[in-house]
Amino acid sequence: MTHNNNSLSVKNIGIDTYRENIVFMRYDCDVCRSEGFSALTRVVVTNGNKSIVATLNVVTSDIIEHHEAGLSAESMKRLNVKSGDTVSVVHLNPIESFKNVRGKMYGKRFNNESLSDVIGDIVAGRYSNIELAAFITTCVNDNLDINEVIGLTLAMIGTGQKLDWGKELILDKHCVGGIPGNRTTPIVVSIIAASGLIIPKTSSRAITSPAGTADTMETMTPVDLTIDRMRKVVESEGGCMVWGGAVQLSPADDILISVEKALDIDSEGQMIASVLSKKVSAGSTHVVIDVPVGPTAKVRTNESALHLQKQLEQVGSSIGLKVNTIITDGSQPIGKGIGPALEAHDVLSVLRNSPSCSVALKERALLVSGALLELAGTCKYREGIAQAKQILESGAAYKKFIRICEAQGGFKEPPSSTKQFDIMASNSGKVVSIDNRTLARVAKLAGAPKSVAAGVEFFAPLGSQISKGDLIYRIHSESDGEMNYAKSYISSVNPIVTIV
Amino acid sequence: MTHNNNSLSVKNIGIDTYRENIVFMRYDCDVCRSEGFSALTRVVVTNGNKSIVATLNVVTSDIIEHHEAGLSAESMKRLNVKSGDTVSVVHLNPIESFKNVRGKMYGKRFNNESLSDVIGDIVAGRYSNIELAAFITTCVNDNLDINEVIGLTLAMIGTGQKLDWGKELILDKHCVGGIPGNRTTPIVVSIIAASGLIIPKTSSRAITSPAGTADTMETMTPVDLTIDRMRKVVESEGGCMVWGGAVQLSPADDILISVEKALDIDSEGQMIASVLSKKVSAGSTHVVIDVPVGPTAKVRTNESALHLQKQLEQVGSSIGLKVNTIITDGSQPIGKGIGPALEAHDVLSVLRNSPSCSVALKERALLVSGALLELAGTCKYREGIAQAKQILESGAAYKKFIRICEAQGGFKEPPSSTKQFDIMASNSGKVVSIDNRTLARVAKLAGAPKSVAAGVEFFAPLGSQISKGDLIYRIHSESDGEMNYAKSYISSVNPIVTIV
Repeated sequence: MTHNNNSLSVKNIGIDTYRENIVFMRYDCDVCRSEGFSALTRVVVTNGNKSIVATLNVVTSDIIEHHEAGLSAESMKRLNVKSGDTVSVVHLNPIESFKNVRGKMYGKRFNNESLSDVIGDIVAGRYSNIELAAFITTCVNDNLDINEVIGLTLAMIGTGQKLDWGKELILDKHCVGGIPGNRTTPIVVSIIAASGLIIPKTSSRAITSPAGTADTMETMTPVDLTIDRMRKVVESEGGCMVWGGAVQLSPADDILISVEKALDIDSEGQMIASVLSKKVSAGSTHVVIDVPVGPTAKVRTNESALHLQKQLEQVGSSIGLKVNTIITDGSQPIGKGIGPALEAHDVLSVLRNSPSCSVALKERALLVSGALLELAGTCKYREGIAQAKQILESGAAYKKFIRICEAQGGFKEPPSSTKQFDIMASNSGKVVSIDNRTLARVAKLAGAPKSVAAGVEFFAPLGSQISKGDLIYRIHSESDGEMNYAKSYISSVNPIVTIV
Repeated sequence: MTHNNNSLSVKNIGIDTYRENIVFMRYDCDVCRSEGFSALTRVVVTNGNKSIVATLNVVTSDIIEHHEAGLSAESMKRLNVKSGDTVSVVHLNPIESFKNVRGKMYGKRFNNESLSDVIGDIVAGRYSNIELAAFITTCVNDNLDINEVIGLTLAMIGTGQKLDWGKELILDKHCVGGIPGNRTTPIVVSIIAASGLIIPKTSSRAITSPAGTADTMETMTPVDLTIDRMRKVVESEGGCMVWGGAVQLSPADDILISVEKALDIDSEGQMIASVLSKKVSAGSTHVVIDVPVGPTAKVRTNESALHLQKQLEQVGSSIGLKVNTIITDGSQPIGKGIGPALEAHDVLSVLRNSPSCSVALKERALLVSGALLELAGTCKYREGIAQAKQILESGAAYKKFIRICEAQGGFKEPPSSTKQFDIMASNSGKVVSIDNRTLARVAKLAGAPKSVAAGVEFFAPLGSQISKGDLIYRIHSESDGEMNYAKSYISSVNPIVTIV
């Protein structure tokens, strides 16, 4: 295919369309006219040897000139261009791999090759948000069988970077989310690294939750490390706590997650592929996976938890990863805080052995650390928790935590919010149920995770005795609009905490 | 919920984002800062008593000022605002009905109420393209059972306008697409109206095909009629041929179709709901549905056709519509032309009784017209085709066609293309197969339906004897870019016509 003279001059028009590449062109420019482009046409924009696929927005005003192409912020970064550079714009050939997605919609199975083609095209930015949403929807629920989940895992491993630590035993942990305030990772990594084992931990930012571990850690230390920087941290300290997206271990994942977030869904098959592919890419050999179960957690029943456990261990074994899944209580928030900085304060309280620390968070962290120590074989069966406790209470874990933060670029205390609003009990009695999902949504509406100090602080654990007028939870926010939005949402739903 | 002072001044920045509403706001404007908005936030933009839901694109340059909100072309139309008008922008409450879509993803069934809520929100513009893609994907293949299809049909009827002709017998026809050049509608409407029956036909524009009936008719007469205008045409002539989207009989449909088009899929359940809801909304009582079957048609096997026939008649009967489905040959193009104007030329040849007209197109039109005359009870069983033939060959149908066009705003001859390229046979023999899908794609790449004169003219029907060097098909285009694109596509795929 030859296209002569489809060149346009880049103009930075300063429009942020998030991850979707958008090119803005005049309806009456030579390229639109000769190529027959119109709004929503999918095109290829090329700068030398770099190309992106973009959606065309047609411009009828003079914000750009005839010979110019406006590019969205992310597109300019991906193409590595600045205003005045020349790019060429041509029709997009039909994306062959989308045939596989269409086939899946009509009941065909994916195989390893078709999934590899789909994930490859997604990573190359060739799928529009509409196509991504269709792919994600074909993968939810039990639409993927075990072979498809293995294929998806292998496809994701195939597209990212892969780390090799030159050691036989590399530990890792993961928690299948859904419990607010379940921020055990920084504590677990500190304990394991303090014990002399290697745990190069990468974490994600929030998907549909008010905070991811990376969001929480970022309130205390840089998490946006290159692979070289990450390697140096692990070589000197035995552990790290960095953002997985920055080291590009599973670039497909970040793209899929942005669309899942917009749909507010999680897909089990994609979750398994995403979790296990990142572990393999990070060079891990032994992984403990925490699956909290509760009526409003991500996994609602023991039956689903056992199904997930089986799938995780089956996929793990087929890709050479030793997986130990622990099923835990997910009926209520674990720490007190829900939101990046609030959870960071909880983590520090536990690491500093503060008398007012969250006992539930400490116990959960010791449980996971114990399982890791046992899986690694450095202590006997059933002695892991005691060993982890000793490392934590001696102060060795906190010392290690600070050393890791320093190695990542420095430690700072997490911030506190500027606006608070308290919700009091309207009657006396015992706390019999907590709606974690609604609680998480309040934290999100209050601004978490984007406003790092925003979220919810929770004071009424299951079974506790409450008197009318007691503080149940406190909303933290950084803007009046978001605070009002959280408050108006609360007034529109059933009470989050049931006291009888 | 109270939001003070979330007012911004509209600026027309002349950006066409097709159907998706986009609002462009400065990252540092008061509203973004106080509300905590960031790229891709979903917001409600209000002008007096009109509101739209829009996706936020954040602007970091000076194409708009702090106090301004840029709106996409369609959004300005929907809100009925112009530059300088004041709008307010607030957070979007979570779209409650999307819970139903999420439930469906996880295996729950839709019911009439949940579908009515979903379709209501879609019509109100509350779904993003990502959410629409997810909804469409949950509805493909056999994901919808018969009750869900009935529910979807009722939901679609509930959202649009509804016509009432004050008569007991209102005829209509529909063809389940997939066959290039199957443009029988203008001929059928002319015959039926000429026979004295009433057939207020609304047609769609192309979904995934190179031309819809509305696209074809528009090359000869205005199709963009208001309901009042349409009513006058039908009252005076007994029939019309207008674009269904303009009369808003099923506004949900047009939105869903734009996303289906982007995914290049059709969903049987949605197709049935779309077709039958439009018939009921148009006030029809008796409908003939043509289902062409062929290896590269939309319906590939007799088994699928019988399944579709059963569903159509079952849904029809549950909503009070008399449906007669005829299953026809869909193994090859029907007329010679594929593309709006090329198909219009075919239609005119048949109506004018030209000796060189497409016999296949004429016969198919007579078959459908005959079935309608029989369903209406104005002739005996098996005498419909002969009666239709008499009306066509007498010139009465052509006279009626011209009268209808005049009533719709005037008749003009369809245009011809400026660029042609001929594809010749590379060997001699008999035509044994034709890949209709690839042929349709060539017509689309050549510019159809947007360039109305573009498309393909086809000269090698199944079974015909061809000599090496004979003209097989001719590509018509209006731009060099599109012509090159069609040609390069042909060179990359298997031959469209197999001659042995």
